[in-house]
Amino acid sequence: MGFPRSDVLSARHRTVRARLTGLGLDALVVTTPTNIRYLSNHAGTAGTLVITHSDVHLLIDFRYQESVRATQASDAACPGLRTWPVPASYDEALIDMLASQGSPVKVGIEAAHLTVARKEWLERTSIARGLAITWTSTERVVEQPRLVKDAIEIANLRDAASRLTAVAETAFRAVRPGVTEREVAAAIEVALRSAGYERPAFETIVASGPNAALPHYRAGLRILMPGDLVVLDFGGVLDGYCSDLTRTVSVGAPTPDALRLHAAVRDAQRAAIEAVKPGVPATSVDAAARGLLESRGLGEAFGHGTGHGLGLDIHEEPRVGPPRPHSASVQLEPGMVFTIEPGAYLPGMGGVRIEDDVLVTADGCEVLTAVPRELLALG
Amino acid sequence: MGFPRSDVLSARHRTVRARLTGLGLDALVVTTPTNIRYLSNHAGTAGTLVITHSDVHLLIDFRYQESVRATQASDAACPGLRTWPVPASYDEALIDMLASQGSPVKVGIEAAHLTVARKEWLERTSIARGLAITWTSTERVVEQPRLVKDAIEIANLRDAASRLTAVAETAFRAVRPGVTEREVAAAIEVALRSAGYERPAFETIVASGPNAALPHYRAGLRILMPGDLVVLDFGGVLDGYCSDLTRTVSVGAPTPDALRLHAAVRDAQRAAIEAVKPGVPATSVDAAARGLLESRGLGEAFGHGTGHGLGLDIHEEPRVGPPRPHSASVQLEPGMVFTIEPGAYLPGMGGVRIEDDVLVTADGCEVLTAVPRELLALG
Repeated sequence: MGFPRSDVLSARHRTVRARLTGLGLDALVVTTPTNIRYLSNHAGTAGTLVITHSDVHLLIDFRYQESVRATQASDAACPGLRTWPVPASYDEALIDMLASQGSPVKVGIEAAHLTVARKEWLERTSIARGLAITWTSTERVVEQPRLVKDAIEIANLRDAASRLTAVAETAFRAVRPGVTEREVAAAIEVALRSAGYERPAFETIVASGPNAALPHYRAGLRILMPGDLVVLDFGGVLDGYCSDLTRTVSVGAPTPDALRLHAAVRDAQRAAIEAVKPGVPATSVDAAARGLLESRGLGEAFGHGTGHGLGLDIHEEPRVGPPRPHSASVQLEPGMVFTIEPGAYLPGMGGVRIEDDVLVTADGCEVLTAVPRELLALG
Repeated sequence: MGFPRSDVLSARHRTVRARLTGLGLDALVVTTPTNIRYLSNHAGTAGTLVITHSDVHLLIDFRYQESVRATQASDAACPGLRTWPVPASYDEALIDMLASQGSPVKVGIEAAHLTVARKEWLERTSIARGLAITWTSTERVVEQPRLVKDAIEIANLRDAASRLTAVAETAFRAVRPGVTEREVAAAIEVALRSAGYERPAFETIVASGPNAALPHYRAGLRILMPGDLVVLDFGGVLDGYCSDLTRTVSVGAPTPDALRLHAAVRDAQRAAIEAVKPGVPATSVDAAARGLLESRGLGEAFGHGTGHGLGLDIHEEPRVGPPRPHSASVQLEPGMVFTIEPGAYLPGMGGVRIEDDVLVTADGCEVLTAVPRELLALG
C-alpha cells in the first residue's frame, strides 16, 4: 500500500491523454490538489501540474522540492516528470513554463477548481505576453477516471476503512453521562492517530440529545445525559485515502421512540446496501433508503443525500442522492467506493444516522467498514 | 467574545454597501465561507449570501436551518436577514432567488472564490431564464474591510493566541527521545481541545531531525533522537478565529550548529517584530527578517515569506513577504493581525522556525502569543 508505482501512474496518464485527444487539447492544467496527487504522487497542498501528450510538468515551490526529489528517486516516481521552480506566484510560473515550451496552444483548465480571478489573470497575461494560448474550460477529465478505483486505491481504502473498528471501540468507551461532546471527539481523534491515520478526514461530529437533530453540528460543550441519542461521525486519512463512519448510540437505556427511529434508519441503510450492484444508477441506492424511511413516515426527516464517493477526497463522485434535473446519474461499476449514510432528524428530539463505506463488486458490494450497527446502550 | 452582535454586523454591512456603490453594483454574491460568516454570523461550511443595498439574503440547505433560526433569535442576529431554502443546488437556488427579486441586475461575484464552472453556469442559466443580470468579477470587497479587525475580532484573536501557552507546555513535555513525531502531534491536538479550541487551525507539524528541513512536512513515524532539532507548528480555532505558533526545540543538548541556526532565526524574528508599526509596508517587515538572515549567510535557507494575516482564515491578508511585481504592498494599520515566522532550513541537517502572532497597535505591535523563544533542550 502507500503510493502507487510508476506503472500505475503511466496507466493513469494514458487514460487522461486519451481524454485530451478527444477534447482536441494539447495540455491540461491540473490545479485540483487530489488530481495532482493522482497523476504524479506529489501530495503537497500546493502545486500546478501540466500534462501534455509527451510530458508531465510539475510546478512546485521551495517547500516541496525535497519531497518530490525523494519520490522521484523511488519506485513511485512519476514517469516523464519535469519539475519547475515557482519563485513567486504559481500562475506566473505557469505562464513562464508554457512560454518556454512554445508548443501547447489549446490548453484545458479544470473549471470546477480554477477560480474566475485566476482564469481572467491567465487570459490577460498570456495576451500581454503575446502567447497564442486558448484557455478552454474542462470538467471531470481526471475525476472521471478516478470514479473507478484501481487496485492500489482499493487496497488503501480497504485498509483505511478497516482501521475504524478500533476507533469505534474507543468512541463507545468514551460515551457516558457527564462527559462533554468535545471530550468524546478528543478521544476519537486520539484513537484515529493511534490507529495510524495521518489525520482526521474531517472534523469529528459528536452530536448529543437535541444536537443530534442538526445533521452538520460538530461537537460542543453539551454534557451527555441519560436517554440521549449521540451521533458519532468520524473518519481518518491513511496513505491519502479517506474513510468515514457514523454510528448512533444511546446513553443508558434507549427510549421506545429512539429504538423505533434507529430501527427505521438501520432498515433504510440495509435496503440501500442491498440495492448496490453494477449497472444500477446511483439514484436507485438513494431511492431504496428514502422509500423505506417514507414508508415509516420519516421522509421529511431525511433531508440529505444517501451517500458520497470516497477516495483521495472525502466527498467525491459518485453522488448517491435523488435524481436531479439536467444531470444524469452515475451508473455503478465495480471499483466504485462510496458511503451509505441515511439519517432521520426530529428537531428538538434528536436524530439517528448510520454510515458505512462500500465497494461495488462484480455482483453487489463489499462493506469495507466493520462495526456493529445495533443501537448500543452505553455508559 | 464569541459572535459579534447585530450592531457590529450592521457596521460591516454599511462598509460593504459603500463599496458596492463605488463599484456601481446592485448586489454582491458572497460565496467565500468566512466572508459569509463575517457578514451574517452563519458559520456553516455551505451557504450563499447575497447582500443588496436593502437586504441580506442567506441561502442555506436543510442542514443549517435550525442553527440559523437559533442565531436569529439571539443578540447576534444578522440585521435585515432573509433566509431562502436550498432544495437541491445552491446555484439553482441563487438564480431562483434573484428571479423572484426582479431588481438586481448588476451583480458582483467573488472572483477569487467562485470557480469558472459556477460562473459559466450562472451566466448560461440566467440567459436561458431571460434574466437581465450582468455578472461582474470583484475582488477583495469583503476581504479589504476584514484586514483591520474590529474590537470583537481582536478580543477573539487575543484569547485564541493566549491559550497556546498551555498547549506549548504540553508539547514541550511530549518531546523526548524514542517517541514518534505523530505521538507528539497527537499530544498537541489533545491539548488544543483541552484548552477549549473548537478544532486545530491546520494540520499540526512535528518535524524532527532532517525532516525539520522540509518547511511543509507534517508529522510522520520518525522517532525522535538525541541531538534532533524539532519544529513544532500548531494552532487552534476559537470562536472561529485562528491562532498559529511555532517553536523549535532540541532533543537533549543542542549542537553548536543548532544553537547558531536558532540564534539567527530568533534575531531575524526580533528584527521583524521591531519593524512593525503603522504606516510601514508589510514588505518591510519581511525585509527586516530576510536582511538579518542574509547577514548570517542564511538568505538561501529562508525560502518562504515572513508571515501571513490571521483571522477567520488561517491564511488571509496581509501577506508579509518580499515585494512582488505588479502588486502594491499593504501598508500596516492598527488592528491588523498577522504571524511573524522566519525560518532557516538546511537540507540533510535540519531547520528552525520561530513564529508568533502580532497585532499592529498605534505605535508598534502587541505580541499576542506568550511562549519563551529560547532554544529549549528537552527530554
